[in-house]
Amino acid sequence: MNFLEERIQKDGIVKEGNVLKVDSFLNHQMDISLFEKMGEEFKRRFANAPINKILTIEASGIGIACIVAKYFDAPVVFAKKSKSINIDGEMYVAEVESFTHKCKNQVIVSKKFLGPDDHVLIIDDFLANGCALQGLISIVSNAGGTVEGIGIAIEKGFQSGGRTIRNLGYHLESLAIVDSMDAENGTITFREQ
Amino acid sequence: MNFLEERIQKDGIVKEGNVLKVDSFLNHQMDISLFEKMGEEFKRRFANAPINKILTIEASGIGIACIVAKYFDAPVVFAKKSKSINIDGEMYVAEVESFTHKCKNQVIVSKKFLGPDDHVLIIDDFLANGCALQGLISIVSNAGGTVEGIGIAIEKGFQSGGRTIRNLGYHLESLAIVDSMDAENGTITFREQ
Repeated sequence: MNFLEERIQKDGIVKEGNVLKVDSFLNHQMDISLFEKMGEEFKRRFANAPINKILTIEASGIGIACIVAKYFDAPVVFAKKSKSINIDGEMYVAEVESFTHKCKNQVIVSKKFLGPDDHVLIIDDFLANGCALQGLISIVSNAGGTVEGIGIAIEKGFQSGGRTIRNLGYHLESLAIVDSMDAENGTITFREQ
Repeated sequence: MNFLEERIQKDGIVKEGNVLKVDSFLNHQMDISLFEKMGEEFKRRFANAPINKILTIEASGIGIACIVAKYFDAPVVFAKKSKSINIDGEMYVAEVESFTHKCKNQVIVSKKFLGPDDHVLIIDDFLANGCALQGLISIVSNAGGTVEGIGIAIEKGFQSGGRTIRNLGYHLESLAIVDSMDAENGTITFREQ
């Protein structure tokens, strides 16, 4: 097991309905030294990509993205979720379905901050069905930029998001891939990488 | 002028209605090396406080808080905005009015991540009327914790939030205090500190 799998094993809580709570270190309280290890590891996995921008989505992706960005010496842009557009100026918009909240949101990025010269690493905390990620990819594509890679903390390997993204040819790296969870006895099975 | 005032002068855009756009480096695209300078400066200003936790609020506070946290070797907790409570377990709740969106939100933090042993530095990007900040202070207080300090990137000195918080005796440090702005010619006047 790598450092993140060990931490999930130690502090993650499995709930009914394939819910994995990691709010003590990843997405409510945030362990910055863990994020630094993640940054180092993403830098190793994407060592040869000419990344000049990190893209993430509010809210829980932002902390990881900011720490990871130090290892790539790149600025972070975070996509905003909105029911209605209220940033002024021109923006890229993608429609995204939320698994957690069972609703549709728009995801928006100002056109000022993404363009054809951008070589983007997309960072997020979770990948499940991949709707948010597909929205971010479509925004980079609309901007004429290049998705150099996608770095995810925890992928739910039993949902289809990761497979679809890999089938499409993207370089997707998930630090921990959960293949199954059992809420009754709290066990988590990780995919061998 | 300090490094942040210089950056605001260079890249900030003044709009009608006392709006200051700093989305190219602070709260949409984020300049991580700028955030590191902010972290160093907050560490200098709060050098003697026994800070063991950073508290911020989603979304635009998170990036700054995570970089600042490295200088205090402390975890970050971010308060979530919600129209309705949907985190399970017990949580602290404060009612907060949003200046930008003209609506009321609940701000919530899980009770697991704040308690009587916590000596908290609150971090946020903007301070205007101070409603969000008051909500965060009330949450720390409800948890029995201690607010050791409040670190803000940009304070709108012509609104009442900062004065109220200082009158209440809190150690508030704003890296840039804007005393006035003029949308017509784009000038920004900073308070001498």
